[in-house]
Amino acid sequence: MRFVWIALLCVVMKGEPALMPKPAKLERLSGEQRVDASFRLAFQRAAAPRLERGAARFLERLTRQTGIPLKLGLAASVGAANLIIDCAQTTDAPLTLGENESYRLQINVEQARLTASTITGALRGLQTYLQLVDVGERGFAAPSLIIEDAPRFPWRGINGDVTSHFMPVPVIERTLDTMEAVKLNVFHWHLTDDQGFRVESKVFPKLHTLGTEGDYYTQAEIRHIVEYARDRGIRVLPEFDMPGHSGTWLIGYPELASAPGPYSIIHTFGVYDPALDPTKEAVYTFIDRLIGEMAGLFPDAYFHIGGDEVNGRQWKQSSTIQAFIKQRGLKDEAGMQTYFNQRVLPILKKHGKRMMGWDEILHQDLPKDIMVESWQNHESLAVAAQRGYKGLLSFGYYLDHLKSAGESYVVDPVGGPAATLTAEQKQNILGGEACMWTEFISPETIDSRMWPKSAAVAERLWSAAEVNDVADMYRRLDVVSHRLTFAGARHETNYEPMLRRIAPAAPLQALRAFADALDPTGIEHREVFQRYTQETELNRMADAVRGDSAVVRTLEANVREWLRTPTPEREAAIRRVLEAWRDNDARLTPFGPTSSLLREFLPLSKELAQLGAAGLEAMDRLSARRTDAAWARGQAALLERNRHVRLEVRMAAVRPVQLLVEAVNR
Amino acid sequence: MRFVWIALLCVVMKGEPALMPKPAKLERLSGEQRVDASFRLAFQRAAAPRLERGAARFLERLTRQTGIPLKLGLAASVGAANLIIDCAQTTDAPLTLGENESYRLQINVEQARLTASTITGALRGLQTYLQLVDVGERGFAAPSLIIEDAPRFPWRGINGDVTSHFMPVPVIERTLDTMEAVKLNVFHWHLTDDQGFRVESKVFPKLHTLGTEGDYYTQAEIRHIVEYARDRGIRVLPEFDMPGHSGTWLIGYPELASAPGPYSIIHTFGVYDPALDPTKEAVYTFIDRLIGEMAGLFPDAYFHIGGDEVNGRQWKQSSTIQAFIKQRGLKDEAGMQTYFNQRVLPILKKHGKRMMGWDEILHQDLPKDIMVESWQNHESLAVAAQRGYKGLLSFGYYLDHLKSAGESYVVDPVGGPAATLTAEQKQNILGGEACMWTEFISPETIDSRMWPKSAAVAERLWSAAEVNDVADMYRRLDVVSHRLTFAGARHETNYEPMLRRIAPAAPLQALRAFADALDPTGIEHREVFQRYTQETELNRMADAVRGDSAVVRTLEANVREWLRTPTPEREAAIRRVLEAWRDNDARLTPFGPTSSLLREFLPLSKELAQLGAAGLEAMDRLSARRTDAAWARGQAALLERNRHVRLEVRMAAVRPVQLLVEAVNR
Repeated sequence: MRFVWIALLCVVMKGEPALMPKPAKLERLSGEQRVDASFRLAFQRAAAPRLERGAARFLERLTRQTGIPLKLGLAASVGAANLIIDCAQTTDAPLTLGENESYRLQINVEQARLTASTITGALRGLQTYLQLVDVGERGFAAPSLIIEDAPRFPWRGINGDVTSHFMPVPVIERTLDTMEAVKLNVFHWHLTDDQGFRVESKVFPKLHTLGTEGDYYTQAEIRHIVEYARDRGIRVLPEFDMPGHSGTWLIGYPELASAPGPYSIIHTFGVYDPALDPTKEAVYTFIDRLIGEMAGLFPDAYFHIGGDEVNGRQWKQSSTIQAFIKQRGLKDEAGMQTYFNQRVLPILKKHGKRMMGWDEILHQDLPKDIMVESWQNHESLAVAAQRGYKGLLSFGYYLDHLKSAGESYVVDPVGGPAATLTAEQKQNILGGEACMWTEFISPETIDSRMWPKSAAVAERLWSAAEVNDVADMYRRLDVVSHRLTFAGARHETNYEPMLRRIAPAAPLQALRAFADALDPTGIEHREVFQRYTQETELNRMADAVRGDSAVVRTLEANVREWLRTPTPEREAAIRRVLEAWRDNDARLTPFGPTSSLLREFLPLSKELAQLGAAGLEAMDRLSARRTDAAWARGQAALLERNRHVRLEVRMAAVRPVQLLVEAVNR
Repeated sequence: MRFVWIALLCVVMKGEPALMPKPAKLERLSGEQRVDASFRLAFQRAAAPRLERGAARFLERLTRQTGIPLKLGLAASVGAANLIIDCAQTTDAPLTLGENESYRLQINVEQARLTASTITGALRGLQTYLQLVDVGERGFAAPSLIIEDAPRFPWRGINGDVTSHFMPVPVIERTLDTMEAVKLNVFHWHLTDDQGFRVESKVFPKLHTLGTEGDYYTQAEIRHIVEYARDRGIRVLPEFDMPGHSGTWLIGYPELASAPGPYSIIHTFGVYDPALDPTKEAVYTFIDRLIGEMAGLFPDAYFHIGGDEVNGRQWKQSSTIQAFIKQRGLKDEAGMQTYFNQRVLPILKKHGKRMMGWDEILHQDLPKDIMVESWQNHESLAVAAQRGYKGLLSFGYYLDHLKSAGESYVVDPVGGPAATLTAEQKQNILGGEACMWTEFISPETIDSRMWPKSAAVAERLWSAAEVNDVADMYRRLDVVSHRLTFAGARHETNYEPMLRRIAPAAPLQALRAFADALDPTGIEHREVFQRYTQETELNRMADAVRGDSAVVRTLEANVREWLRTPTPEREAAIRRVLEAWRDNDARLTPFGPTSSLLREFLPLSKELAQLGAAGLEAMDRLSARRTDAAWARGQAALLERNRHVRLEVRMAAVRPVQLLVEAVNR
């Protein structure tokens, strides 16, 4: 019986491919196209070098994903090809915002054809093909179908902070590889801040030499990354945060500062006072020369000047600046910042760049061709769009908050406070960015903080607003998540080594069962427990835990289902998990003395055991169709303390157990 | 009770650090040295650039292993350092065979000191320090101790075949990183064969352009790898196999051949006919120019000319060659090959190289300064050493045979037939090489074929002959294996993605439990079932299976112990595994229809279920102190068929079950 049920489920699941983002239009045809070592590509027309490289990368990815060697991937003729790429754009061109990314993919049993107007569109289609290839009854194959697809928003980004913690080039490369896999198209590179100035400047070398401990990108590396991203249809947007978050500029160039130095790298995190002095002409000369140099490295039309979190303290304390504010009638420090932005604007223009900044830059005195990125709230985006500014949403997509994929998935850039805008005003909202701030994130943990969640954000920004079924999203996300490993992401492969490190002698399965029952917590909960610096190790259970685990999610869904429709199979499945939780602590506890990193978290392991036991007791009562309010009340303290953040993690396991206890209380 | 027992075990395990190779001398002191973010290095004397890079790499590795950020790793003064490196060699020098690799490491609570005569010695000591750092009661620490260490053999290598399957540069890099971690010091690069000529030749470009499909190393890459290896104290020994295994030379240069062409890349595996024509002067001119070019890329004093498996067929069929043999009185084809080697010898000398070859080159007419690598049997090494030739052992260390680590561990270069040599003759045996032939191995599977097993070979070649306790080796190997992941090896991290690929919908734990009960099989069992080419996918269960699994090994040890001394704890531990095996098939079977790659192996999953059940039945009888010969006889067929290779794997699980059944039969 159970066999039949699961097997049926598999067939149904096979029915709808796990595509993410979901394409605009999909029509299934009958049959499937086999993919084996004889698989060959062909170009319908002359292929530009970027498309040729894209095709080679496609074959390499297909090899990694399937294990089928495809180095001889080009067909002798179009007719002999398994997949024909028909791309109208036959010569390379720079990437632009709003570029046509649409494609059409038709897969028949004998041959598939990918049609696109642009190279980037063709690259998007190749990623769709990769997501369609899966092992089946007769080996690897892609289902026969017709997909017509195009993105809803033209700007779908990840903002990568490399200042709080430096991310070496390979981390950026694998981030770009994984972004391509889910059709994200902007890498917003937060390069400078109080914690580091991460770009080599030949014009002002003290920026990177004094603004880092040697961990910066050389100009050759920057060029490499920009090219690497372009190959993948990803624009690189540099951010040089000013006038605040600029402490590392002032170490070597204190003459730009609003207050006397000396300045040094700040190794802790937060909002600090250092700010450029907007009253000094030298500041604008400096910015002109710096942007001039950087414009040569970053070809994109947009240039992000940050502009966030200027606390104005240095400006308030400076009599010169205060006198300037009065003299010019600027009202206050916010006015001062707008003056600064107005001065920077022509400098950007001169170097062929359009201004972009966080929502603090929004001010009526700035022209409409600037771009505003809303991070503080969704309202500021609605206001900007209403006033005719172009804008992006980041609020709601903060990866460092470590919320579930589902929570970000339901945030729509033109939803919420932006829902009431006119259709024309909504056109001003160009998309969004998932923000990866790295205060509590290392090159080892960054993958599990970005992936697979950013795939859900990618779908929100690519697919139709109506594609919003959270359960279906997770069904596909679980499949896509494993696939992303083959694209280069390490969210899955770094998990076990991090767990083993915590307690090498303990059984890995028990460590994993424990970690899978926990959710990590974001920036708002970390420094409550301890003060962090760039030197703090990020090797604890709180760092290893990935969250959003399929174990808890599936259990929760199973409990809801079982409470509605009790079946013996479902009851058995639920009990298996609860029993494993109940018994897990006994497998971990003996190893407490061997590791401080494990011992610290054992109190939570005991909580998990109690939650498992409580869940089983609840099931006993529910199976016997007994409500028992007194017993349920007795569980209140257990549930209550496990709803709170402890040791910088949340007990995800409390959610399904709470459902069971509540059912007993009814 | 169980708690106490395990905890005690942990303390005991902590007692002896999991070092591999085991050092020559180790004296424990009391206490431990903490390792945290304040950890700093210092050099006692001027550090050569290679040592500086080594120290930077050490800090990076320590960071990866512990998660503690150590980018600021250099101390302000020697006094303030946690680890002082005192290396007498202050300027760089080429690596040489027999270089002093000894070191002394003293770790006190406050400070550690590493003393070495050479940079390479210091690098070896740094790896020992890394292996000593582990998490403990109070965080990461290294035990206080004094280690004095030096290798037993000066030549401890891995022979990496990149012809059967090409291994891209990152694979070679991580192989070298992992080799350094276990103190291996020679990377023998099998670069040319009938399946590929993998080096760019500017002098004879048709070698690599026609001898590959584009998958070769550029000269820049070769230089990079040689330098990368040298940094890690690893010599690179190039092998250009001649006069046989040279089919790819003849594609572009058929005039060198012993038979008329045309020739093409051979995509299958085995011993083929193509051979250089040793009677042609042009052949030696060609070799002279090629070796001249390659000598500029490979600085090592030794040059491997292969010389293996010349089947002589082309020579037999050539009347010119037969006439030459007669005319010169060479006797036969073996004589012809010796003539060839004698001609190549002065060419090598002229380019500053010493000849090395497989044991086929051994012939009394060759001078004593050649080096012989014994692959066919151990006897040939004994014979060579007896006659005064220098030699290495590869026989017994063939990684592609996929035997257990224990089987290679007990093979001693001066043991077996070499044991009867005189002390002086034994001096001619310089070490050994683990051979990684890649007929059935891809860049994805190579790590699990090399690691952790090569660490056991590394210990055999570094540590004293008396270090030969297999159980203790495995205890340490299990720990070291996890550590190698932090050195870059992917034997652990590639496992789950490969299993998931086989059946994405199936529960990973069930796939893993199944795979952990199997052993892979080597070259001698693969082509029995299907014919392989370079294009054959290596993505099946037979490729994912790693073998030597701790589950089976531990169960086997537990069964032996329990049969001797039955305790309830041990019985429970044994039953847990057997029950898991018995129940596992029911978790996998439903997913058979979803994947041809899983379905193929389900018959073995059923066998595992039966073995689990049989083991449990045996335990029931043994617990009741009943022998039952009739029942035991009834299990014979089950055991028998599971002792054989099926589907290119072995059922490792049969071993412990067999022990139980035999005990019932007593």
